[in-house]
Amino acid sequence: MLSTSWLWGLGLWLCVCGGFPGPVQGDRVLAMPVDGSHWLSMKLLVKELAVRGHEVLVLAPETSLLIQGSEKQPYRTESFPVPYTAAGLAQSTEWLRESVFYRTPPLAEITTNVERLLNFTSTQVRGCEALLYNRPLMERLRGQDFQLLLTDPFLPCGSIIADALALPAVYFLRGMPCGLDVQALQCPSPPSYVPRYRSDNTDRMGFLERAKNFVMSGVELKLCGVMYASFDELAARYLGRQVTYRELLGQGAVWLLRYDFTLEYPRPLMPNMVLIGGINCVRDHGLSAELEEFVEGSGEHGIVVFTLGSMVESMPAEKAAIFFSAFSQIPQRVLWRYSGPVPDHVPGNVKVMKWLPQNDLLAHPKARAFITHGGTHGIYEGICNGVPMVMMPLFGDQNDNAHRVAHRGVAVVLSIFDVTSEALVDALEKVINDSSYMENMQKLSAIHNDRPIEPLDLAVHWTEFVMRHKGADHLRPAAHHLNWIQYHSLDVIGFLLVVVATVVVVMITCCAVCLRRCCRGSKKTKKD
Amino acid sequence: MLSTSWLWGLGLWLCVCGGFPGPVQGDRVLAMPVDGSHWLSMKLLVKELAVRGHEVLVLAPETSLLIQGSEKQPYRTESFPVPYTAAGLAQSTEWLRESVFYRTPPLAEITTNVERLLNFTSTQVRGCEALLYNRPLMERLRGQDFQLLLTDPFLPCGSIIADALALPAVYFLRGMPCGLDVQALQCPSPPSYVPRYRSDNTDRMGFLERAKNFVMSGVELKLCGVMYASFDELAARYLGRQVTYRELLGQGAVWLLRYDFTLEYPRPLMPNMVLIGGINCVRDHGLSAELEEFVEGSGEHGIVVFTLGSMVESMPAEKAAIFFSAFSQIPQRVLWRYSGPVPDHVPGNVKVMKWLPQNDLLAHPKARAFITHGGTHGIYEGICNGVPMVMMPLFGDQNDNAHRVAHRGVAVVLSIFDVTSEALVDALEKVINDSSYMENMQKLSAIHNDRPIEPLDLAVHWTEFVMRHKGADHLRPAAHHLNWIQYHSLDVIGFLLVVVATVVVVMITCCAVCLRRCCRGSKKTKKD
Repeated sequence: MLSTSWLWGLGLWLCVCGGFPGPVQGDRVLAMPVDGSHWLSMKLLVKELAVRGHEVLVLAPETSLLIQGSEKQPYRTESFPVPYTAAGLAQSTEWLRESVFYRTPPLAEITTNVERLLNFTSTQVRGCEALLYNRPLMERLRGQDFQLLLTDPFLPCGSIIADALALPAVYFLRGMPCGLDVQALQCPSPPSYVPRYRSDNTDRMGFLERAKNFVMSGVELKLCGVMYASFDELAARYLGRQVTYRELLGQGAVWLLRYDFTLEYPRPLMPNMVLIGGINCVRDHGLSAELEEFVEGSGEHGIVVFTLGSMVESMPAEKAAIFFSAFSQIPQRVLWRYSGPVPDHVPGNVKVMKWLPQNDLLAHPKARAFITHGGTHGIYEGICNGVPMVMMPLFGDQNDNAHRVAHRGVAVVLSIFDVTSEALVDALEKVINDSSYMENMQKLSAIHNDRPIEPLDLAVHWTEFVMRHKGADHLRPAAHHLNWIQYHSLDVIGFLLVVVATVVVVMITCCAVCLRRCCRGSKKTKKD
Repeated sequence: MLSTSWLWGLGLWLCVCGGFPGPVQGDRVLAMPVDGSHWLSMKLLVKELAVRGHEVLVLAPETSLLIQGSEKQPYRTESFPVPYTAAGLAQSTEWLRESVFYRTPPLAEITTNVERLLNFTSTQVRGCEALLYNRPLMERLRGQDFQLLLTDPFLPCGSIIADALALPAVYFLRGMPCGLDVQALQCPSPPSYVPRYRSDNTDRMGFLERAKNFVMSGVELKLCGVMYASFDELAARYLGRQVTYRELLGQGAVWLLRYDFTLEYPRPLMPNMVLIGGINCVRDHGLSAELEEFVEGSGEHGIVVFTLGSMVESMPAEKAAIFFSAFSQIPQRVLWRYSGPVPDHVPGNVKVMKWLPQNDLLAHPKARAFITHGGTHGIYEGICNGVPMVMMPLFGDQNDNAHRVAHRGVAVVLSIFDVTSEALVDALEKVINDSSYMENMQKLSAIHNDRPIEPLDLAVHWTEFVMRHKGADHLRPAAHHLNWIQYHSLDVIGFLLVVVATVVVVMITCCAVCLRRCCRGSKKTKKD
C-alpha cells in the first residue's frame, strides 16, 4: 500500500480549467482527488454524483498525470497553481519505469525509499501550501456554500480544507501508508491475525510470524510519525491550533474503502467504514470491431490480457524480450498494453497496444488469464470477471495484494526481477490448464459479485447521507475522546492493581499484628 | 439484554404440528426460533424466505407462548415433545406479571435472579435434550437435506443441531446475555468506551465509570462461565468432543443483529455482523374503522400509545389506578394494551384493548407519545415512526435500552416502582410539548430510516448468500484459531521482554568484564 500510494501521489493532483460560474441550486460537493489510478475510481463516484443532480467541483493542481477536465463531463474542474512543473512531475515518476524491473540491494532499497519518501512529502506539502495560502481561491471556495468535501486522504489538503471550511468529509481510498487510516478510525487491528504491510504474513501465523508482525506494527507506528510530520506541521500552522493529521482524519464522517474480504483478510471494522471493493469493475463501451475480431480469432485457446498498471506502460528492451519470447510459445492470443520499443518479429499471437479496455477484455468469454502487477483496480477486475491471474508485483502494496490473491488459489506470483520465458510459460499454463485455478476463481468471483447493493450505489448513498444529515455523528465512536492509555484501560488496570496491592498489604499487616499480639499473649500466659 | 432474553426464552420455543411431507425442490431452511418477542421479528424473515420460494421448516417445542403454526403461513411447523407442560411454562413466566412492578431489596434481587437463571437454564437444557435425543425426529431432519439452519442462538439447540447436521448457521438475535455473542464473534469490545450491561454508563465515561465498566466486563466473563456451563456440557456430551457453546457459536456463518447505531453506541464490528435494526418496523393491515375513528377523534391533541410488551399485559390494580388517574388529566386520547381489571370509571379518553396494532398506531399522524417498557421492538417502532417516548423499563436489557434512547433526547425514563400520576403527566407533557423531543426524534428517525437497503431485504440477502456459497468463510477472522494469550500477543510480548532483558544483561556483563579487565590491567601496570 505504502509505496504504491506514494507513487500515485508523486504526480499530485491536477487540473483542467473551469472557473466558478454563478451559484446554482442543489447540493454542492467539493472533490479533491489524488492523481494517478486513485483518480480513476474516484472519478466514477464524482461522475455519478453529478449525474444524480449534485453540483460537483473537482479541485486539482494545474499539473496532472490523469485528471483531465472536459466540458463533456457532468462535473466542473478548477485548477490551482503549484510550485512545480509538468517536467518536474514527469521526472519524479520516471524512476518508476526504470528501477522497478531490477533488484536493488536491500540496504540501497531502504535508503532510496526514505529519500523518495522525503522528496515526495516535501513536494506534497509545497503543493498543498500553494493551495491553502491562495487566498483568492480559498475565499471563493468559502463563498460557494459546499455541503460536503469528498477527498482521498492520501494527501492532506482535503482534510485541512474540510476543517477550515467546516465541511463534513467523505474519504475515498484503498488504504493509507503505515495504517494511518486504521489508527484515525480508532479501528482495532490485532497484530496477532491482521498481517502488517510487507510482512509476507497471511492471517494464520505461527509464533515467530506473530512476533515479526507485532514488531512491524510498532515500526509502522514510528514510521507514521516520520511520514506525516510535515502534514502535521502544515495542518497545525494553517488551522492555528495543535492538531495532528491523524486527529484531522479522525473527523471524517464516512470512509469509503476500496476493498472487500475477497481480497483482504477478515478483520474488525468500525461503523463508519463502508466497503466498496470492486467499484471500478464497470464495463466501458464494449470492444471495437478490430479488437473483437482479434479476440474471437483466438479460438478455443482464448486470450491473455497483460498490463502493468497506469503508471508503467513500458519496460527495458531485454525484459520485454522475455515476454515476447514467452508469448510466442503459448497457444493463446495476447493483448499487451505496452508503449516501449517493439522487436522486429513480434509473435503473430501478440497485439501490442498503448491503451487497452482492460475490464471489457477480462469480461470477454475468451479471457483465460490476466498478467498484472497486482494493483487493486486490476485485481478487482480480474476477480469480478473471474479470470485467473499471473502476478508480477512492482512496488508498494502490490506484493501484499499479489500474495493475498495467490493464497486463495486463483493466481501465481512471479518475481519481475527473476522472470524468465520458461517461468512465465509455466505460470500461464498452470493458471489456464490446472482447473483448480479457474474453479477457485469462479467461487471467489461469485462471492465478490454476490452483494445486496452495488458498490457505486453504496458509495453514492453514504455520500448523500452525509450531505442530508450534515455528517454521520451517530457512527463516530467515543474512542476519539480517549488517549492511548485510557483507550487500553491502562490507568484503570494500574489503579486496580494499587487497590489490590493496598488491600493485600493491609490484610497482611493486620494478620501480622494479630499474630504478634496472640504470640505475646500466649507467652505472657506461659510466663504467668 | 440478559434477563429479557431469559424471560422470552422461559417459554421455550414451540409449535403447531405439521409433519414432514415428501422431499420437494428448492433450498431448504431449518428454522429454530426462540419463543416470545424473539419469534415476532424472526417470523418476518422466515415468512419472507418462504415467500421467495425457499422451503422453510420451523422446529418448535410442543408447548409455546407465541409460535403458532397455521396452514395459512407459507412455512411449515414441526413440533417436538418437551418434558414440561403448558401450565408449568405459564407458571414459570407468571412472576413477570407480579414482581416487576415492585422494588426488591438488592440482595434479594440477586438471589432471585440466580435462582431464576438456574431454573431457566435447567429447563432449557431439558427441552434441548428432549429434541436432540429424539432419534426418529433427528433422523428425519438428517434426511431432509437442509441447506441452512436459521436460529436465535439465545438457546443452544440450533447451534448443536447445525454442527451435528453439518449445516451452515445464520443467527438472528438482539444480543446475548453476558456478551457471549461478542466473544464468540471475536469482536473487540474495549471497556473504555463500550458500556457494559446494566452499568448505567454511556459511551463517554469518566475515570471511575471506566473502572466500573472494566470490572463489570470481568464479571461478565465469569458470569458467562456460570450461565453457559450446562450448555457446554450438553454440547460436548451430544457432539462427543470437547467443545464449548462459545466455540460452537463461533462457527456461525452470518449474524443478523437486530440493532443499529441509532440505539447502540458506535463500537467495532466484525465482517460477518449484519445490522438489521428496525426489521420489525413493518406496517400491518392498517387500523380498523373503529380504531381510526377513535384516533381521528383525538383532534389536535392526538393520541398516546401505551404497551408494556408481549409478556406483560396486565398489572396490579393499584398500579393501574395510577395510570388511569394520569390519563384522565391529559388532553390526548390513550390506547392501552391492558388485560387486567378495569375500574368502574374509565376516563373517556382511554381505550383499553387486549391487543393493539402498535406499529400502525405509532405510524398514524396523530401519534404524539409512546409509553413503553423499552424492549427493542417497541423502541424501533417508536424510532422508525418518529414518536417521542416515555419509558418504564421492567427487566433485562430494557433499562439499558431506555437510558440509551433518553441519552439522545427523545425520551424520558420513569421508574415503574415509584411512578405517580403527577410524574407520568409531567413526563407526557414534556415529551409532547417540549419541541426538542420531537425535533430530536425526527432527526433520529430520519437517520434510522435513511439506509441503502431495507433490513428485511438485507437479512434475506445474507441468508440466501450463506445457502448459495455453503457458508461465508471469507468473512471468518483467523482470530478463531488463537487462544486468549495468542490473540492479545501476550506470549510475543513476554518473549520480546525476555529477549530485551537478555540483551541488556549480556551487555552489562560484557561491560563489567571489560571494566574489570581494564581496572586489573591498570592496577597491574601501576604495580609494575
